Amino acid sequence: MDVAGDLAGRVPHRHSIATVALGGTLGEKLAAASAAGFHGVELFEPDLIAAPLAPEEVRRRLADLGLVLELYQPLRDIDALPPERFRRRLDLVRAKFDLMRRLGARMALLCTNVSPDAVDDDDLAAEQLSAVADEARSRGLTVAYEALAWGTYVSEYDHAWRIVERAGHPALGVCLDSFHILARGTSLDGIAAIPAGKLFMLQLADAPRLRMDELQWSRHYRCFPGQGAFDLETFLARVLAAGYAGPLSLEIFNDIFRQADPFRTAVDGRRSLLWLQERVGGQTPSTDARTPAPLAGGDLRGFAFVELNAPPETTGGVGRLLTGLGLRRTGLHRSKPVELWEAGEARILVNSGRRAVPAPGQFAVAAVGLDVAAAEPVAQRATALRAPLVPRHRNWDEADLVAIEAPDGVEIFLCAEGSGWRGDFDPCPGEHPFGAKARLTGIDHVALGQPLTLFHESVLFYRSLLGLVPLESQELASPNGLIRSQALTGEAAGETVRFVLNVPVLGGGRALARPAQHVAIRSADIVETARAVSAQGLSVLPVPGNYYEDLAARLGLDAASLETCRRGNILYDEDSAGRAMRHCYVTSGQGGVLFEIVDREPGYTGYGAGNALVRMAAQATR
Amino acid sequence: MDVAGDLAGRVPHRHSIATVALGGTLGEKLAAASAAGFHGVELFEPDLIAAPLAPEEVRRRLADLGLVLELYQPLRDIDALPPERFRRRLDLVRAKFDLMRRLGARMALLCTNVSPDAVDDDDLAAEQLSAVADEARSRGLTVAYEALAWGTYVSEYDHAWRIVERAGHPALGVCLDSFHILARGTSLDGIAAIPAGKLFMLQLADAPRLRMDELQWSRHYRCFPGQGAFDLETFLARVLAAGYAGPLSLEIFNDIFRQADPFRTAVDGRRSLLWLQERVGGQTPSTDARTPAPLAGGDLRGFAFVELNAPPETTGGVGRLLTGLGLRRTGLHRSKPVELWEAGEARILVNSGRRAVPAPGQFAVAAVGLDVAAAEPVAQRATALRAPLVPRHRNWDEADLVAIEAPDGVEIFLCAEGSGWRGDFDPCPGEHPFGAKARLTGIDHVALGQPLTLFHESVLFYRSLLGLVPLESQELASPNGLIRSQALTGEAAGETVRFVLNVPVLGGGRALARPAQHVAIRSADIVETARAVSAQGLSVLPVPGNYYEDLAARLGLDAASLETCRRGNILYDEDSAGRAMRHCYVTSGQGGVLFEIVDREPGYTGYGAGNALVRMAAQATR
Repeated sequence: MDVAGDLAGRVPHRHSIATVALGGTLGEKLAAASAAGFHGVELFEPDLIAAPLAPEEVRRRLADLGLVLELYQPLRDIDALPPERFRRRLDLVRAKFDLMRRLGARMALLCTNVSPDAVDDDDLAAEQLSAVADEARSRGLTVAYEALAWGTYVSEYDHAWRIVERAGHPALGVCLDSFHILARGTSLDGIAAIPAGKLFMLQLADAPRLRMDELQWSRHYRCFPGQGAFDLETFLARVLAAGYAGPLSLEIFNDIFRQADPFRTAVDGRRSLLWLQERVGGQTPSTDARTPAPLAGGDLRGFAFVELNAPPETTGGVGRLLTGLGLRRTGLHRSKPVELWEAGEARILVNSGRRAVPAPGQFAVAAVGLDVAAAEPVAQRATALRAPLVPRHRNWDEADLVAIEAPDGVEIFLCAEGSGWRGDFDPCPGEHPFGAKARLTGIDHVALGQPLTLFHESVLFYRSLLGLVPLESQELASPNGLIRSQALTGEAAGETVRFVLNVPVLGGGRALARPAQHVAIRSADIVETARAVSAQGLSVLPVPGNYYEDLAARLGLDAASLETCRRGNILYDEDSAGRAMRHCYVTSGQGGVLFEIVDREPGYTGYGAGNALVRMAAQATR
Repeated sequence: MDVAGDLAGRVPHRHSIATVALGGTLGEKLAAASAAGFHGVELFEPDLIAAPLAPEEVRRRLADLGLVLELYQPLRDIDALPPERFRRRLDLVRAKFDLMRRLGARMALLCTNVSPDAVDDDDLAAEQLSAVADEARSRGLTVAYEALAWGTYVSEYDHAWRIVERAGHPALGVCLDSFHILARGTSLDGIAAIPAGKLFMLQLADAPRLRMDELQWSRHYRCFPGQGAFDLETFLARVLAAGYAGPLSLEIFNDIFRQADPFRTAVDGRRSLLWLQERVGGQTPSTDARTPAPLAGGDLRGFAFVELNAPPETTGGVGRLLTGLGLRRTGLHRSKPVELWEAGEARILVNSGRRAVPAPGQFAVAAVGLDVAAAEPVAQRATALRAPLVPRHRNWDEADLVAIEAPDGVEIFLCAEGSGWRGDFDPCPGEHPFGAKARLTGIDHVALGQPLTLFHESVLFYRSLLGLVPLESQELASPNGLIRSQALTGEAAGETVRFVLNVPVLGGGRALARPAQHVAIRSADIVETARAVSAQGLSVLPVPGNYYEDLAARLGLDAASLETCRRGNILYDEDSAGRAMRHCYVTSGQGGVLFEIVDREPGYTGYGAGNALVRMAAQATR
C-alpha cells in the first residue's frame, strides 16, 4: 500500500502539501514534496504562473515524481456576484478549467467571495456555483467550495455547506480548512451533517494563538500540525468520522517556511501528518509495521548526560570549569578522547575528538543523552518519522547507543537500560570537590539556541519523536533583540526532562543568528553550591543591585533571604502559588555555553523567565 | 537655546526618547540618546533592573551626558483595585518613588489597569490615584496617568482625563500617547478640553496600519513619526494648541529597533521629531537658523544620473550591457576613472575608481544624482537632520556637487542648475546605437535592496530630506522569502522621481540579506526597445508562457498585443482605470544590479507589483 494508513472505514488517506507551503521555485517545491514521501500536492496558481514549465511539462514532472495533483488553487471572488460580473468571471473559470485539464488536475478550490462586490444571497451563490460546476463536469473536473474566515458573507464552513447542498450539483462539494474553522472557534458539530461524498477536500494547518486579524494570521503564521496551538486531533477525528476519504493536505502560509530550505520543510510537514494521524488513533507513521509509540511516562527515565564538543585547546578550561562547578572526572573512554564528569546524577561528557568544531576557542553542546527503557523502538520511530539517525561508530565491546540528529545538529542519544554505556569508561580515582550539601544532583534542563528557520521543525521534532509537550512560549527582550523561548517537557519516571528552545523573533540582527546554549544543573541547596563554586574560583554572573531592590519591592522577600541571594548573585522567582525557584549562572569565559545552577521547590515548573533579561544584559559584553 | 524650537506660546519642547526604543545595554542606550542630541529620556524599568549601574550612578551618567530623566515608566495595575490589593500595591509605589528620587526622576508614568482584578469604578480610581499622587507629592514627584488602548475599563484618553479631573490632585495629570489614541481612532476633540497644566507628558509613536490586537500591534510594530501611517501632524498640532509645554518623547516598541545599532536608531528618532515639528509648522530642524524646506515640487527637477560602482574587471561587461541597452558612451571624466553613458535623459556613470568594492566580479548602484534648483539648501537641511554629507574631493575647476549618504550607503548627489557637472566630462564622439523609436528617454525609478534594520530609517531619510512621499507598501513572495516593497515618489517639474526600497520581511534566510538593486529606464516604445536590445545580443529575462495565458484569462488582452508581449518577454499590468504599464528586465550576468525597461501610459503610477513574482522566480537560479 503506497498510502498512509488505513483508518475509519479502511479508507486510505494520501498525504498532500500545497506548493505555497514551501520556499524555492516550483521545480524545487515538487522535488521536495516527492522526496519527503508526499503522495500529492496542491498547486498554488502563482507558483505555476511564475514557472518556466508549460502545463504539460508540470504534468509530466508530477508523474515522474510520483505525485498526484490533488487540487488547483485558488479560484477567488466568483460566487455570489452580480450577473454581468459573474459572466465575465465565468470566462476566467473556463480558461482555468482548460488549463487544469492540461495539468492533469481533477479538483479546483473555490474560496468564498471576499470582495465588496459580493452579494448576500445564498440562492444566487448556489446558482452560480452550479454554473461553475457545470463547466467543471463537462471537463471531468470537480469544484471544492471553501469558506474563508474573512469571506464577505460566507465565512463559516456550515454556511458554505448549506450553499453546496442547495446547489445539489454532483461536481460540487466542500473543502474544510482547519485554519478557518479553528481560528474562528466554529463548532465542529456541523461536520457530521455533511455527507461523506460531499467532503471533497481537507486542508490541515495549525497556528499559534494570536490576537490579530484572521487574514493576516492566516497568511503569515500558519504552521504544520503539532507546531501551533490548535486542537487538530479533535478536528481531524471529526472529519474522518464523517467519512472523509480524500487526502490530508497541508496548506500553510508561513513567512519563515517561505525562506527556508524546501526539502527540510517538506520532511517536517510530512512528519507532522504522520504524527497527527497517529494521535488521532489507529494509524502508524510507517506503512509497513506498527511504529513504536513516542517516549512518554515510564519509557523516558531522565537525562543520561550532556556531551560537550570541546576541541583540545578548550579541554583545560572546560575541566577547570567543571571542577569549579563541583563535578569530578570519573571516567576516561576506552577508545575515544572522551572524559566523563559527574556530580550526583549530573553527567557531562567532554569530547575532544569530534570532527565538527565550534567557533575557535569555544566549546558547544554536541549531544544530549536520555535514559530510556529501550532504544531500538525510538530508532524505529525516528526512521518512520523521517528523522536522521546518527551513524554509529563503536568497537565490538562497547555499548551500542542509538542517536537521532535534531534539526540543529545536536545529537539525541538514547541510553537503554542495560546498555552499559558507562562501562565504556575506565574509572578515574579521586575525591569529590564539594561537600554533600553543596553537591549537584542532576541535569535540570538544556537550552538550545535555534536559527529562525529551524524553530518550528525543532518543536515538532521533540514533540513527535520524544513525546515532549510544548508549554506556552515566552518573548524575552535581550540587548540584541527579542528572543522567543519555547520550553518542552516530558514527565520521566521520577524526574522531568526539560528542553528549552530559544530563537530570535526576527532573523538577522546582532549576534542573533544562534542564541547561546546553556546547561542547567540542579542543586538541592543553591546557596551552598554558589558559595562552593565561588570558593573554587569561578565567577558567578553578577546580578545588579537594582534587581534585588525590585525583588524586595515586588515580592516582599524578607531581608535575610534577599541578602543571601544578593551575596550569591542568585536570581529568584516564584509562581502564583508562592513556590520558588532560585538560580544563578556561571560564566566560562569561553562563550557559547553557559552553565546554570537551579534549585526549584517542588511544583515550580518555570524557568525564571522574568530573570532572563538580567542574564542577557549581563551576558551582553557591549 | 538648548531646546528644539519655540512654538505655540513660546514654550520650548525638549526632545526625549524612551530607553525601550533602543537596542543594547542601558549604558549604550543613554550614550546613543545623548549623541543624537536628545535632551532627555524616559527610563523603562526593566532597563534599569538589568543594568549594573546603581540609581545614583545612572543619575550621574545622565548628568554627564546632558540628559534629563523625563519619566520613569511604567507603574502598572495600580488604579481601581480592591482596597486590600491596592494597599499592597501602594507599598510597591512607595519603593519605586524612593528609587525615583535617587535617580533624579521627577515624573512617573502610571498606565491604566489591564488586569482582570480591576474594578469599573471611576470614583475608586480617582481616590486611589490621589493616594498615589500624595506619595509622589511628598517626595517632590508627579504622576502622569495614561490610558492604554487595552485597559480593562479605562482605554480612552478622555476617560483617563475625567478620572484625573475627579481626583483634582496637583501632582496628578495625564500622559497622552499617540499610539493608543490613533490606533483606536479616538476623536481628538477632547484634547482641547484638558487644561494645559494637566497635560503632563506627550509620547509620540507612529505605526503602520495593521489589523491586529492593539497590544501586539503596540508592542512590536510602533515606529518613529514619519515611518508609519498615523496622522501625527494633526495630533501634535492639537496637543500643542492645548498648551502642552513638556517634552516630545518617543516611546517606541519595535522588534527591529531592538536588534539594531542604538546609535543609528537614536539619530533616526531624533530626525523624526525634527521633521514632525517642522511639518506641524513654524519649527525648524536646526536651532540656530531656519532650515531649508525639503525638496518638493519645483525644487526637485528629476534624476540627473545613476552611478555604478564598477571595479575595473567589470567595466568591459558593464559597457557591453549599456551599449546593448542603447546607451552611448558620451563622456570621460577629466580627472577620475568615470565614464558617462547616455540615452535621452537617462544618464549612467560608470565609476571604476571607487574604493569600496561590491562582491567579486559584481557591480552595484553607488550613487543617484538628482537635478535640483539649488544644492546648498539641501546640504544645510541634511546637516540639520543629522544625515551625513559625503566628503567632497574635487579639483579646483570641477563642479562642486553636494552628496548625502543614504542609510544603506548609496550616495544621493544634488546637481544644481548651473553646477555644470557634465562639463567635467570630455565628450566622446560616436553614434547612438538605437533608432529614434527604440531610444530610451530617462530614468524611471531606482530600486534599492535594504537590510531589515535599515528599512524604517531609509523611508524617513527619503521622506524628510528629499520630501518624497511613501506610497502603500506591497508584500511580494519571492522564491527566497517574502519581500516588502516600499515606493516613495516626488513630483518633480515635468517628471516623477521614484525610489523603491525592498526589504526582506524577516531577517536571516537565504539570499535575503540584501535584495538586488535595479535601475529602471523609460522607453517610449518598449516593443521597439526590447527588439533592439535583443538585436544587440542582450538577453531579456524570459517570461513563462503560463504568465501570458493567465494574462489573457484575467485581462482579456487581445491576441495581437499578447503575442507582441510574449515575443518580447514583456510583462504587462494595468490599473483600475485601464492605464497600462509594460516592462521587461535585462540580465547582466554580473548579479547585483538588474536593468528594467519601463513604458508607462500617462497616469499609471505603479510598478507592476503583480509581475514581481515572475521576475523573482526567473532570477532565482536554484
